[in-house]
Amino acid sequence: MTSSAEYLAGRISETARRLRPNAIRAMAPLLTRPGLISFAGGVPSAATFPADAIARIAARLIREEGSRVLQYGMTRGNRELAGFVVDRLRAKGISWTSPESLLLTSGSQQALDLLSRVLVDPGDVVFCELPSYIGGLSSLWAAGGDLVGISLGDDGPDLDELERRVLAVRSGGRTARLVYTIPTFQNPSGITASASSRAALVELAEKLDLLVIEDDPYSEVYFDASAPPPASLASMDTGGRVIYLGSLSKVLCPGLRAAWVVANPEISRYLELAKEGADLCSSTLDHAIAAEALREGLVDDRLPGIRSFYAERCAAMLAALQREAVPGCSWTLPTGGLFVWVTLPGSCDARQMLDACVDAGVAYVPGQPFFVDGSGANTLRLAFSKEDPDAIDAGITSLFRIVAAG
Amino acid sequence: MTSSAEYLAGRISETARRLRPNAIRAMAPLLTRPGLISFAGGVPSAATFPADAIARIAARLIREEGSRVLQYGMTRGNRELAGFVVDRLRAKGISWTSPESLLLTSGSQQALDLLSRVLVDPGDVVFCELPSYIGGLSSLWAAGGDLVGISLGDDGPDLDELERRVLAVRSGGRTARLVYTIPTFQNPSGITASASSRAALVELAEKLDLLVIEDDPYSEVYFDASAPPPASLASMDTGGRVIYLGSLSKVLCPGLRAAWVVANPEISRYLELAKEGADLCSSTLDHAIAAEALREGLVDDRLPGIRSFYAERCAAMLAALQREAVPGCSWTLPTGGLFVWVTLPGSCDARQMLDACVDAGVAYVPGQPFFVDGSGANTLRLAFSKEDPDAIDAGITSLFRIVAAG
Repeated sequence: MTSSAEYLAGRISETARRLRPNAIRAMAPLLTRPGLISFAGGVPSAATFPADAIARIAARLIREEGSRVLQYGMTRGNRELAGFVVDRLRAKGISWTSPESLLLTSGSQQALDLLSRVLVDPGDVVFCELPSYIGGLSSLWAAGGDLVGISLGDDGPDLDELERRVLAVRSGGRTARLVYTIPTFQNPSGITASASSRAALVELAEKLDLLVIEDDPYSEVYFDASAPPPASLASMDTGGRVIYLGSLSKVLCPGLRAAWVVANPEISRYLELAKEGADLCSSTLDHAIAAEALREGLVDDRLPGIRSFYAERCAAMLAALQREAVPGCSWTLPTGGLFVWVTLPGSCDARQMLDACVDAGVAYVPGQPFFVDGSGANTLRLAFSKEDPDAIDAGITSLFRIVAAG
Repeated sequence: MTSSAEYLAGRISETARRLRPNAIRAMAPLLTRPGLISFAGGVPSAATFPADAIARIAARLIREEGSRVLQYGMTRGNRELAGFVVDRLRAKGISWTSPESLLLTSGSQQALDLLSRVLVDPGDVVFCELPSYIGGLSSLWAAGGDLVGISLGDDGPDLDELERRVLAVRSGGRTARLVYTIPTFQNPSGITASASSRAALVELAEKLDLLVIEDDPYSEVYFDASAPPPASLASMDTGGRVIYLGSLSKVLCPGLRAAWVVANPEISRYLELAKEGADLCSSTLDHAIAAEALREGLVDDRLPGIRSFYAERCAAMLAALQREAVPGCSWTLPTGGLFVWVTLPGSCDARQMLDACVDAGVAYVPGQPFFVDGSGANTLRLAFSKEDPDAIDAGITSLFRIVAAG
């Protein structure tokens, strides 16, 4: 009888030893508890999925075009879906988008994984926000990236700090060519970088010869119809610096794994090669359904409803926070997306507090795993996407009862 | 204006520079020519897809369980599908299969990619057959594997050669712990390893402390109902040496990306971590449909028909080869799967001959890319899955007209 360590010794690669469990997904078993009010999983609400329309589209596509939608597809992806995405991105000002710059992927997580493999060698320094999205960090770590955090303020990352750190890393003889940012309704913080901060980041990328990964799954989900978020970094670029990731997960549904990455065609060619080795092709059916959904206007027609759905839940959460939060707390005021970020008094430890909260019937994600520097013990992420306004109100009340007792 | 090389210098990782295009998928544009008789793409025939039944299942699942099948899923995969797969594998004698050893993947290509990342470090030697499946080789190369070929005879790989090479590599101080094999109806050769060769490989793996990846997408597609292929390597193992890959691509359809990898639970845990970073989860819809298809018996009930479908096409191809082949040719006599492998007279170059063949209306895949040692210039792979028997007959006639003229 050998132990795990003995069995694995000499069998598992260095790459495998770099893999880190995703702290959010590791919580999933905890969240199956009946009656739990969950602010933990940052998944879109199933109430926003147009199930009947998707059922109709799926049945028709499979019956009438089964020989196409049940067969292997091209690695670069469904051409119709690609066409719709190119049109949408050009309409959003990312004028350099082209079929040669676009790769369709099995969710944005796959795009992050392919980018990490194509752009990061073990030991390369990659800059990310403090806090940042755990799935993106996981991919960058898996590729061997040495992740260095940059402070995130209310209007975006601290660019002076970024410049100082890039120069310091390079003066030490190390490679530092990549920044990972989520400028709009950030996961986990809910923060949106200002227009001027975006322009300054693109300018700094040019000055320092950096590539920027702009991860943008939430920007369509803004709450005030008259106030969309600032233009994307990618729209301020000419196609050499910024790599742009988008997804249908929050505006259609995530079970159909349909997302995209737009990059300089030279990089995109390598992403396609990496995807070929990763899975040959995405689900042909998923991407065919997604193309039909866009053709029918199933996303655009439903966006106003999706926006007000999340706006109402965010408002309920902010109102409850305003009423319940103990002195010394602060939180972000998101104008879109799925998340509010809470900073508790410095003496609180959100990880230690979680068990008591789950016992009291409310769950969240402790903030520390989102910080590559190990800080953030007194922070937590609240997703307002799953629960209805009354449950949000009750959950925040329970949560701060525990905080106050702690 | 910068050149590609200038733009990419300092931007692309070493990993990216190791990526090799898949020679088969690179041929795809060639194969769209109208009227072409194609023996090239090794994809299953759409005539074997139960499109109407899948349409019915998909519509019902999405309408009745949209909040589940359109939502994110667990990384390890749909539990119902996993349950059916565990039962099937146990019934095939792989008694050590368990929910903890099984990971559902987005096609077998993803399993090959995850295995390569978890088991291979740059510079590690990995043994494969001469010839072997290009997609598997691509993943192993991408992880930095140094691929060493082992001769493949009519009843399996040359195990004396394998042992000599393992010992030689290790005596040189290098890591050699992994063998990649496709023992049943191999892609590309159509060869099936004998029962005794399989037992000997498992024994050798034990003796030399090797892990064996058994890639098995074709074993259900045997032609003679009374003569299934020998038992899998995995069924001769107790769960520590052999890692087993299976798929629904050839017995249901490949557009639903549904496959699995069974490995020692210690390894499987790392595969799950790697998948989490790779795509969070497979298509929830695809795997839910696959589970329903297995529950309804849609695979088992249709297997006899799928077997006779391909048996008829293989027989047509072998008969045409017997009639048309020029002196000095030889070919394999598959008892299942999708492929016949042809060795032309030594002076022929299958790659050079391809353009003339396509001009004459017939396509195949030159054999050389399947050989990691660069040999095989006079070999080619013929897939009999796409064309009907008359077209197969006509295509082989055209092909050997070119060979005879060359």
